[in-house]
Amino acid sequence: QVSSDRLMGMLADLGQRGALEGGGVCRLALSDTDKAGRDWLVATMRDLGMTVSIDAIGNIWGLRKGRRDGAPIMMGSHIDTVATGGLYDGALGVLSGLEVIAALNAAGAETDLPVAVGAFTNEEGARFAPDMMGSGVYCGALDRDEMLAVRATDGDGVVGEELDRIGYRGSDAPVIPAAYLELHIEQGPVLEQDGLQVGAVTGVQGIHWTEFTVTGQSNHAGTTPMALRRDAGQVAARIALAADAIAADYGPPQVATVGVFELTPGLVNVVPQQARLTVDLRNTDGEVLERATARLIAEAEAAAEAAGCSLTHRPLARFAPVVFDDTLVGKVEAAAQARQLSVKRMPSGAGHDAQMFAPLCPTAMIFIPSENGLSHNINEHSDEGDIMAGAQVLLDLVCDLAGA
Amino acid sequence: QVSSDRLMGMLADLGQRGALEGGGVCRLALSDTDKAGRDWLVATMRDLGMTVSIDAIGNIWGLRKGRRDGAPIMMGSHIDTVATGGLYDGALGVLSGLEVIAALNAAGAETDLPVAVGAFTNEEGARFAPDMMGSGVYCGALDRDEMLAVRATDGDGVVGEELDRIGYRGSDAPVIPAAYLELHIEQGPVLEQDGLQVGAVTGVQGIHWTEFTVTGQSNHAGTTPMALRRDAGQVAARIALAADAIAADYGPPQVATVGVFELTPGLVNVVPQQARLTVDLRNTDGEVLERATARLIAEAEAAAEAAGCSLTHRPLARFAPVVFDDTLVGKVEAAAQARQLSVKRMPSGAGHDAQMFAPLCPTAMIFIPSENGLSHNINEHSDEGDIMAGAQVLLDLVCDLAGA
Ligand SMILES: NC(=O)NCCC(=O)O
Ligand SMILES: NC(=O)NCCC(=O)O
Repeated sequence: QVSSDRLMGMLADLGQRGALEGGGVCRLALSDTDKAGRDWLVATMRDLGMTVSIDAIGNIWGLRKGRRDGAPIMMGSHIDTVATGGLYDGALGVLSGLEVIAALNAAGAETDLPVAVGAFTNEEGARFAPDMMGSGVYCGALDRDEMLAVRATDGDGVVGEELDRIGYRGSDAPVIPAAYLELHIEQGPVLEQDGLQVGAVTGVQGIHWTEFTVTGQSNHAGTTPMALRRDAGQVAARIALAADAIAADYGPPQVATVGVFELTPGLVNVVPQQARLTVDLRNTDGEVLERATARLIAEAEAAAEAAGCSLTHRPLARFAPVVFDDTLVGKVEAAAQARQLSVKRMPSGAGHDAQMFAPLCPTAMIFIPSENGLSHNINEHSDEGDIMAGAQVLLDLVCDLAGA
Repeated sequence: QVSSDRLMGMLADLGQRGALEGGGVCRLALSDTDKAGRDWLVATMRDLGMTVSIDAIGNIWGLRKGRRDGAPIMMGSHIDTVATGGLYDGALGVLSGLEVIAALNAAGAETDLPVAVGAFTNEEGARFAPDMMGSGVYCGALDRDEMLAVRATDGDGVVGEELDRIGYRGSDAPVIPAAYLELHIEQGPVLEQDGLQVGAVTGVQGIHWTEFTVTGQSNHAGTTPMALRRDAGQVAARIALAADAIAADYGPPQVATVGVFELTPGLVNVVPQQARLTVDLRNTDGEVLERATARLIAEAEAAAEAAGCSLTHRPLARFAPVVFDDTLVGKVEAAAQARQLSVKRMPSGAGHDAQMFAPLCPTAMIFIPSENGLSHNINEHSDEGDIMAGAQVLLDLVCDLAGA
């Protein structure tokens, strides 16, 4: 049995690391608050009797021995957050994993296979792109040295240097699990709207992040006739609307988001010389997503050319859609039903560490509802009853898979 | 006779204060580099035998005595720059004023009236809005205490506190001149295109700066269906395009510029919760300008409402068009012609300190060509011959008006 005192207590404890006035947390990857969260996590893992490992990209995982050696059943997620994040995104997956360990400990239960809990570096991609960076390196989908050299999207810091700075560049070799399970808040409105308690996640939609840099010419806002301008900001605004139009034209599940939009020099009376913006496009259909990205880039190029500006673009993330193991997804459904919880199969709108494990081992995810579908927002909230239901399903699955 | 060694030397000297690698200068109002420029200016005025005064908003003016007391003939401009400014915008008007004083000194010439040179605080409006802040207070068009309380557009610093910090909050009472003359680079393409050496400025177009703040809801870029979003950034992009469309619909001389565009939290995978942008609208026709601003605000409100966002807006600057003294403008023309310089009457696209003096005393401006019409750009350039021609016309006019 999972304990709500223990799990809710851990969520509150970790939530103090990087807590924002007014609620929510800011634990951007490899920041001082991320370090504080990591320190707390490592100490908590040790308190639970786990052996802690850290790899070259700062992924942390704790291992609880099984009756026999071999590949563990791994639970996991991330403890980094966006700048205005909530208490549950990522943290729930890691801490419910610790709760499973604590419950096994409390019951004096042995498992056949070892059981592991992982916390993967920079899942959010908020400070460094791409997202799922740590799990991508762990699973071999992203190149370690390339990732260590990534500079922050805002220019401030490099992954490898920041790992050294906070003391989390380890040297342990990743352990590929026998199966991977991740409990996560849905972060969207579907479960709440359908009045369901659990989602058995069938896969993750494709994610394309593209950064555009438009270069025009700075000039005087009062003296420069419109016809003589090379206004990088106007081009960027057109790219932003083009992204929105693509989502409208393609219809659901296509989504498009312009999250970063910066002008240089950024002064009231100066025609902008440079603009930098990012576009996040997602679709469950990988081919449609490829077409959407190609159309966006073509429209961006046309907008720049029409305005006499030059354009560069680079992919910050390119993840194809991922399908989870059908048998394991079925076990999630069955485990929920066995606890009299309402459940449905559904795709994930957000990217998750689980998607990096999917090609390597049977992988599945458990979703619980998000109040008002809010996430990446300080008011992100999930009901305690839903949290405990999700953790119980996770415990039941681990007992099944690890042989308790 | 003006001396090119002296004047070009002073331009180079002042240009070292806040010099940027790669050329150009950054002397944002009341910054450390502005202080360095002010210190140099005050020392240079004293070297020229002038009495230096500083008022409550940090305007600096030096006075050269005349045969009799009374209102001086004043020359002036500003030494603050935008963040990526050139060597001549503003600096030329102040330093050519000093050059006139140096030429009078060198000739041992007395004038009937005193002659003054002013450097007015924060003409650019790049760091603090509105522009022409110092001359506006000097001339009584802007409220001193209100201006002392203005916070920087980027949030970093308050006018009064910054004046104290750099030691330029004075207590001298402004002296209203008998006439005001300002030599300035055109900052636009007209004189160069027409192959002319001098512009006799007839007035300044109206300037409306409006800041918009759009508030929506931050949410997850992957999980939030387009239909459920309240995306502040998309509204801001629509406002930016609306500004551009207004300029296109109204046609010249209407111009529109979006110089500031900022998103919060500004992360790749977060729907923006807030957007802040500025729109700079200008027109020589005050009524058309009022209509343009009203249309912009109406379209901004409609865009916000359609996206489920809230909108606030505030005027950062509202300057009606200004017409200069016809007699004095005629004298500028005549003085240029007397020196065999090609000249035409033309309006100013940029705002200038002169426009604040126009209601109080006969006021005029002398323009010289800007290479490629570039300004508010580190590559801003004017030809030495044109600079010296402008300074000579200024000297001739001062001798005439002050009675040399
Ligand atoms: N779960 C989550 O918010 N992941 C961040 C990666 C993304 O989907 O943008
Ligand atoms: N001369 C000049 O660049 N003034 C700045 C004020 C403005 O026109 O925006």
